[in-house]
Amino acid sequence: MKKIFIAIALSSLASAVCAQQTLKPEEMIKFRKAGYSFMAWNMGKIKANLEGTYNKEQVIAAANVIAATANSGMGALYGAGTDKDAAGQKTRVKAAFFKEPDKVKELAVAFNKEANELQKVAATGDAAAVKTQFGKTGESCKACHEKYRED
Amino acid sequence: MKKIFIAIALSSLASAVCAQQTLKPEEMIKFRKAGYSFMAWNMGKIKANLEGTYNKEQVIAAANVIAATANSGMGALYGAGTDKDAAGQKTRVKAAFFKEPDKVKELAVAFNKEANELQKVAATGDAAAVKTQFGKTGESCKACHEKYRED
Repeated sequence: MKKIFIAIALSSLASAVCAQQTLKPEEMIKFRKAGYSFMAWNMGKIKANLEGTYNKEQVIAAANVIAATANSGMGALYGAGTDKDAAGQKTRVKAAFFKEPDKVKELAVAFNKEANELQKVAATGDAAAVKTQFGKTGESCKACHEKYRED
Repeated sequence: MKKIFIAIALSSLASAVCAQQTLKPEEMIKFRKAGYSFMAWNMGKIKANLEGTYNKEQVIAAANVIAATANSGMGALYGAGTDKDAAGQKTRVKAAFFKEPDKVKELAVAFNKEANELQKVAATGDAAAVKTQFGKTGESCKACHEKYRED
């Protein structure tokens, strides 16, 4: 199992992270859940803008959070001991996540691509284009959730 | 009390948020805690870079998260019913936070300024300048924590 964690840590998923920080498993789980949760709020804001009055600045701000989070090297938050609940921090990650680093990397790269594109499209203020790209970004979130997250 | 919440919602703290999203108090608390928690991870990464080997790209990525979060309109997450624990979501916010909107706004604006400056300085790759600005940013976090967050 240790090898698999190292493989994930060394993958491009975690390329921005240099392992200088020593975190406990429960801290890694807490931080990654925080990242996904805060992205969910920002995705929700974009959705509300697309369904209601469109505010360009709010959509830009939300897309900036999503892109910055996608590029933050969250792969480092899937270290040893984070494959199960740790010290009261619950995780819904499936065991398969740690056994399929190539597939995880593929999904992570796809999500990053869509999130970065969403940031670019949001900056234009073109609501129709944002709607399309928002859909693609949501699909890339869902692809990982369906494969590696318990309901 | 309602008037105070409205005052906060209308302040520039929440200027980027257009209240199209309807969130329950426990959702607002969850999302705001997620935002602060994810920022803490990213502040920790910058600290580790300043104390260990400096990786410009990692610091840029972390500073981008902090700035994007600061600019995301988190004031909207302090709506009615979020001044105390809600449906299992604990909050450490002090009652004074909701009684002093002008002071809260002042601290929020100060934090945003430092976070945006940190993002700019990180982009230069000048570790010494980042160290100085990281200190200022941390102080602006602390100023609010000391006044409005329970230990």
